Amino acid sequence: MPRKEPSRAVNIGLLGLGTVGSGVYQILTSECRDIERKTGLRLVVKKIAVRSLHKKRKIRVPQRILTTQVRELIEDPSIDIFVELAGGIHPVKEWISAALRRGKHVVTANKALLAEEGLSVYRESLRASRRLGLEASVCGGIPIIKALTEGLASNRISHFFGIVNGTCNFILTAMSRGSLSFQKALAEAQAKGYAERDPKLDIDGTDSAHKLAILARLAFRSEIPLRKISVEGIRSLSGADIEYAKELGYVIKLLAIGKKWKRGLELRVHPTMLPLDHPLASVRGVYNAVFLRADRAGDLLFYGQGAGMFPTASAVVSDILDIARNISSGSRPAAQPLFPQLPVLPIDDVKSKYYLRFQVEDKPGVLGQIARTLGRHDISILSVHQKESYQSRSVPVIILTYEAREKDLRKALGIIRAMRQVSEKPVVLRVEK
Amino acid sequence: MPRKEPSRAVNIGLLGLGTVGSGVYQILTSECRDIERKTGLRLVVKKIAVRSLHKKRKIRVPQRILTTQVRELIEDPSIDIFVELAGGIHPVKEWISAALRRGKHVVTANKALLAEEGLSVYRESLRASRRLGLEASVCGGIPIIKALTEGLASNRISHFFGIVNGTCNFILTAMSRGSLSFQKALAEAQAKGYAERDPKLDIDGTDSAHKLAILARLAFRSEIPLRKISVEGIRSLSGADIEYAKELGYVIKLLAIGKKWKRGLELRVHPTMLPLDHPLASVRGVYNAVFLRADRAGDLLFYGQGAGMFPTASAVVSDILDIARNISSGSRPAAQPLFPQLPVLPIDDVKSKYYLRFQVEDKPGVLGQIARTLGRHDISILSVHQKESYQSRSVPVIILTYEAREKDLRKALGIIRAMRQVSEKPVVLRVEK
Repeated sequence: MPRKEPSRAVNIGLLGLGTVGSGVYQILTSECRDIERKTGLRLVVKKIAVRSLHKKRKIRVPQRILTTQVRELIEDPSIDIFVELAGGIHPVKEWISAALRRGKHVVTANKALLAEEGLSVYRESLRASRRLGLEASVCGGIPIIKALTEGLASNRISHFFGIVNGTCNFILTAMSRGSLSFQKALAEAQAKGYAERDPKLDIDGTDSAHKLAILARLAFRSEIPLRKISVEGIRSLSGADIEYAKELGYVIKLLAIGKKWKRGLELRVHPTMLPLDHPLASVRGVYNAVFLRADRAGDLLFYGQGAGMFPTASAVVSDILDIARNISSGSRPAAQPLFPQLPVLPIDDVKSKYYLRFQVEDKPGVLGQIARTLGRHDISILSVHQKESYQSRSVPVIILTYEAREKDLRKALGIIRAMRQVSEKPVVLRVEK
Repeated sequence: MPRKEPSRAVNIGLLGLGTVGSGVYQILTSECRDIERKTGLRLVVKKIAVRSLHKKRKIRVPQRILTTQVRELIEDPSIDIFVELAGGIHPVKEWISAALRRGKHVVTANKALLAEEGLSVYRESLRASRRLGLEASVCGGIPIIKALTEGLASNRISHFFGIVNGTCNFILTAMSRGSLSFQKALAEAQAKGYAERDPKLDIDGTDSAHKLAILARLAFRSEIPLRKISVEGIRSLSGADIEYAKELGYVIKLLAIGKKWKRGLELRVHPTMLPLDHPLASVRGVYNAVFLRADRAGDLLFYGQGAGMFPTASAVVSDILDIARNISSGSRPAAQPLFPQLPVLPIDDVKSKYYLRFQVEDKPGVLGQIARTLGRHDISILSVHQKESYQSRSVPVIILTYEAREKDLRKALGIIRAMRQVSEKPVVLRVEK
């Protein structure tokens, strides 16, 4: 049997003691014996930087390890891993850089930072030959970063669809299940603590775009400029469309979509119609999931809790353990190359199938006019569904199209919108399968 | 920027050039530049041991690296990783031991070996301070081993359900979709190449038990004696029960079930009724999936292709890459403790909900007699469904029970079976949710 070496302590500095920080502290303290027994690693939380020393906290933390000075963590030579759970871009980015330059490995759950300044942070970690753990930044407890970077390392990913925002998925599930309006479903999410009082970041798709940027960077090995991601949120979705989609055999999900073509990358966040038998269709409530297609491993789906104290903390701790194992085995991080920046296709050039809903006067000839306009713009019709009127004077007409180009669709819709017999802005949803 | 070091070659010896071996060879040769660019690692297949040098192969392999002597791989000091894709227990186990003793790391997809002799092989790897990669042994392309051992390292797993045999899942899906008999569905699976000509290992549940042993060992950190796993296959499932299950809102899947209780482990493979909205219910065809509950990360599901040349080869290559990274970074494997052996609960003591189908004479009083017998044995009835007769003289009566003990059920069924009015052996299926 191998000689049992005495375990060396791996010291951790924690920045932030909010929900996730408290979870990480609890796991590291309550599991420390088990972790040592299982891995031979003794993990010690050496210092925690907080905003206020005197805030009431739900967990018990020895006063002596608390500090309001982040500098104390950065400058403590005994700290091996700097765990950033504060959030925000500045001055967090500068703190992370300083920690890396002082030879610390970094673990962060900061998706906004990684989406906006990821390249620069990654460069800094390469320069310092230190590791950067980011499992907790996407999909909480689902080990999707590890799957992309290690489990599927020899694969090329052709595309992925992610339900990466639990708040939106909860709202869409509630709308679909209970025939609720968006406003009522949002209120329910807020009452349950699944949505912030200001839910903008979630429901407008920004949070999903951040996660898309991080996933796409690793899946396609390309730098991803956040501003090139096309983003639509769920705010304007109507219960009527969710009902119509259901009747047609579809469910509506807010998806983060990444596709790699020879011409470039397709990156978009928007409400999407998925057939009911798609593996993502049954992901309900606050759950997250990522579906991806790998050239060797085939189709894969990862499903789990995308947020919350312990799921996210579990991901942070898995990064800490990976780094600690490497420290203890004396391993140096490999010099990984920087990613080239692949071109991103403008949304105008993206092809998709569409669900279109028009509110039209119930008069002969209108449908023919719409169909001709679509046809003239290279948009072929898969099926037409005229619904019972739910308003007094106009009827909804639903058209499913074959694959068409966004630019062509937009032109056609401009013309149709101007028709006298069309009473509202047409509803447009993209359809994937 | 870090100094770009010249990449050292990591040499691989491949034992076996069948389906998976050919896939591994193809990935390693076609992706070698990409892998080197991405990871700085140069992977070289140095030697391949095969049964015959002159067999016609679908892939082109230089004759000079082929040998019929496994010894040549084991004794070649330049080979760093011994990749075992031959299958079978002996002499493969001895070859692996010899390779470990010669300082080679080992990657294997051999689930039978790992299930039956895993402890001994693992001990050998500890003794030699070498790594043992086994991602490909369970669920092909799904990185479930990595998730259990690394991604969820700080979690305790309370239970898991796995659809780990694609052949059985294909057969059950075909029976359920097309109302086929077991025999017809099996013939279809064989025609498509999803079932062996001798399908025993798959349909009798042995293959699932092997995978259960490997998953349970890692999930519960306990040695798992294969013979303590209770195993039932799908051979005796009738189309009628699949139909009745569907009517009641359930689907039947062959599950590998592991649960950890204070009293011990529950380990069983059997056809199981799952509610239609369970995340595993929509896993169709040859796909595999593992659902698990982790104390911190929450409920997780991993879904993908469980077998096939490239999915399995992708898992083998991910292990090779992990080991190669460690070799190149100079890391030594940590001395992990051996697992203690937790007690395994005898199937008699396992509690479950049940679906019971009796064929009874269509006469008053029979149902009452059955219900009383169940009641006397502590088995409470959740619902009773009397079906239309599909035979001439008896009618099927279906009873769903609350949770009951296997031992009690068996006793009650013995008594019921002896009733004059009960014409066939009762059908018993366990129900999970």
